[in-house]
Amino acid sequence: MDIGIGLFGLGTVGRGVVKILQENAEQITKRTGSRLIVKHAVIHNLTKERTGFVKNFPITNQATDILDNPDIQIVVEVMGTLDQAYDIIKRSLNAKKHVVTANKDLIASRGQELVAIAEINGVDLFFEAAVAGGVPILRTLSTSFTADEISRVAGIINGTSNFILTQMASNNLSYADALKLAQNKGFAESDPTNDVEGFDAAYKLIILSNFAFGVQPVLGDLSITGIANVTDADIADANAFGYVIKLLGVAQVVGSAKEAISIEVSPQLVPFTHPLATVHNENNAVLVNGESVGEVMLYGPGAGEMPTANSVLSDLTNVATDLALNTPGHPFNSFNQDLDLAKPSQRIARRFIVVEVDDTPGAMYSVTGMFAAAKMSFTDLKQTPAANGTARLVALTHPASDAQLNVIRTTLRNADGINLAAEYKIFS
Amino acid sequence: MDIGIGLFGLGTVGRGVVKILQENAEQITKRTGSRLIVKHAVIHNLTKERTGFVKNFPITNQATDILDNPDIQIVVEVMGTLDQAYDIIKRSLNAKKHVVTANKDLIASRGQELVAIAEINGVDLFFEAAVAGGVPILRTLSTSFTADEISRVAGIINGTSNFILTQMASNNLSYADALKLAQNKGFAESDPTNDVEGFDAAYKLIILSNFAFGVQPVLGDLSITGIANVTDADIADANAFGYVIKLLGVAQVVGSAKEAISIEVSPQLVPFTHPLATVHNENNAVLVNGESVGEVMLYGPGAGEMPTANSVLSDLTNVATDLALNTPGHPFNSFNQDLDLAKPSQRIARRFIVVEVDDTPGAMYSVTGMFAAAKMSFTDLKQTPAANGTARLVALTHPASDAQLNVIRTTLRNADGINLAAEYKIFS
Repeated sequence: MDIGIGLFGLGTVGRGVVKILQENAEQITKRTGSRLIVKHAVIHNLTKERTGFVKNFPITNQATDILDNPDIQIVVEVMGTLDQAYDIIKRSLNAKKHVVTANKDLIASRGQELVAIAEINGVDLFFEAAVAGGVPILRTLSTSFTADEISRVAGIINGTSNFILTQMASNNLSYADALKLAQNKGFAESDPTNDVEGFDAAYKLIILSNFAFGVQPVLGDLSITGIANVTDADIADANAFGYVIKLLGVAQVVGSAKEAISIEVSPQLVPFTHPLATVHNENNAVLVNGESVGEVMLYGPGAGEMPTANSVLSDLTNVATDLALNTPGHPFNSFNQDLDLAKPSQRIARRFIVVEVDDTPGAMYSVTGMFAAAKMSFTDLKQTPAANGTARLVALTHPASDAQLNVIRTTLRNADGINLAAEYKIFS
Repeated sequence: MDIGIGLFGLGTVGRGVVKILQENAEQITKRTGSRLIVKHAVIHNLTKERTGFVKNFPITNQATDILDNPDIQIVVEVMGTLDQAYDIIKRSLNAKKHVVTANKDLIASRGQELVAIAEINGVDLFFEAAVAGGVPILRTLSTSFTADEISRVAGIINGTSNFILTQMASNNLSYADALKLAQNKGFAESDPTNDVEGFDAAYKLIILSNFAFGVQPVLGDLSITGIANVTDADIADANAFGYVIKLLGVAQVVGSAKEAISIEVSPQLVPFTHPLATVHNENNAVLVNGESVGEVMLYGPGAGEMPTANSVLSDLTNVATDLALNTPGHPFNSFNQDLDLAKPSQRIARRFIVVEVDDTPGAMYSVTGMFAAAKMSFTDLKQTPAANGTARLVALTHPASDAQLNVIRTTLRNADGINLAAEYKIFS
């Protein structure tokens, strides 16, 4: 069977898709029983040169060239815009075309609506490439953990941030220098906000939460902290206690009746011995904790032309299989349940807290008094002299809630000569 | 829809399967649309007490109680024998029952035949639990890398060996003490041959090779070396150069036209910075290198009641989906190709070689001469005094083939006062 593909977008991922379809055509046909053929590509800017693949299909800037083409069964949306992509995908689904997209922002914000439209039209809507690039985490969640109760999903799902933190930790670069290096290498954009402030990870974590817990959070439901305030000193101190700092997206079920979910993007301390600690540079990893399976991790390239294109291809071959078996139209993720949002008192973790105090007699006494008042106790303490007659106090605590931490925050804000310099959860 | 399940075997994995089916019944029904109900279990020894689950189904020792029961659509084979399991699975398939098994020895040795019988009868035969316990590697290979060209699969796929090597490296235990600890913890059997000699890993690697490369090797096609000869000294020396020793199963495509495959189980040196190096104790991991996707790794528990049962459950829910969609009978792995077996000259890697020489003038000269004659050159050399007036020479080489190593082996065997103490490939 011949399956026609229409491509919206011929940027990095689009070119990768064309390359794999051309170079591995024989293998794909052998394994799916179908020939997947790019029939048409639609792009914004026709004057921009398209290189890196054999152009054996027409390229225009008219969406209808794909949408009205009856020989095209699958639309691949890799434009990377929001409103336009929404429009294209919706029109494609309503034209009974299957859709494969890598658009995490769109799926995270309006995925539920598009999934419903796909279902009404009896077509597939797949988006493996939207989360963690080449790592096949979504299909694994939907096919291999169906019978298990997942308690936590934790991922290093933003390659830019992980590259920056790795460079800071391994090569003693400052945040600014590491960011510059990431930009030079093409791992960070000139405006890096979306990556370093945690929004990109947040979108991916929303999609992971759909699949792992059947919930449909919006961005406002998440607690989001980026890496822009991570300092060399924090990294060095974490290192001295056996931890590395990683930007994690963590969604976990909490509450005595497992009734709530905490969804958070933040830099956290990961023990050296934990598999997540060894995920370096632009790589991604997603850790899944299931009641039955225990701890499973999927690791791989988080971005890049070919890895991301490979995830698009895995979606395409799955559509091809559905077409061959006449079984399209079943949602990528069929898990739905209602969970409350976790309260601050339910978000519990060990903490790594850095306080700067005037280096005077009694300063330590007054800090420890504040922690005692918040009912927080320490496992480790380290005090070192800092600049301008201050001392840097690093404290690792026993498990404490966000509510307790808010007490500490308020107390410190009102205290003279004491300043909360940094605060991280310790991942375990 | 109600789907009846018949269980052959109620050992560790069987009990885990019953537990998950009972405890997560509601979730499974919600997500698959079917109720999965154990209708009957058949075991060898009826006098042995079965605990750890609610017995709400009959248990007998008559295979026909399952095979002739029209209410049973799926047979789960978790007996762990070879000939009997073959017989049961064959009869089940011929009775048009879908089969889920965790039996790696059987699938590795007679899988092709059983797959053909399943296809003739239009039923499913799944065996995710046969490789790497809770790690969903087979389904990932068959659904997420269909369009990619896989160049290598490398796994830590024997939990017992990995536990022993981890204990030797981390806690300075001798091989004998680490093995004893593994036996006490239930990670090794009283006769550990199958695990420590590499046969268990070999069976799993055969199945991985089926899925990743479409080849059907037999045990004799593999080069198999276990861990019984790994010494404390080897581990310490590897450590000094930045490596950890792991028992790896490695299948990779070689040759200028990618025409051959090398399939090998052996202890190898893995760099500290590689993700495989952080797979500790009884955990498993499988690394997949694809032309498009790059390097992806799946990590998780390699054995145990609940992780392995979760893999059986993922097979069961996939059969349930096939039944709901009316699409059973498609092979778990549809990839088939012919590759030659790699020649020794095609099996190329950097080497870690340990030679014991009489500590006399000229000894080093004569050793290095032998390596020069085999056209092997060094990247690192370290000589330390050893017992009885000998010296221990550790050499790390540039890439060299098994053929070159055989030359060295022969030369050393004929040399006085020089002994090849150990030889490992360096994984990269």
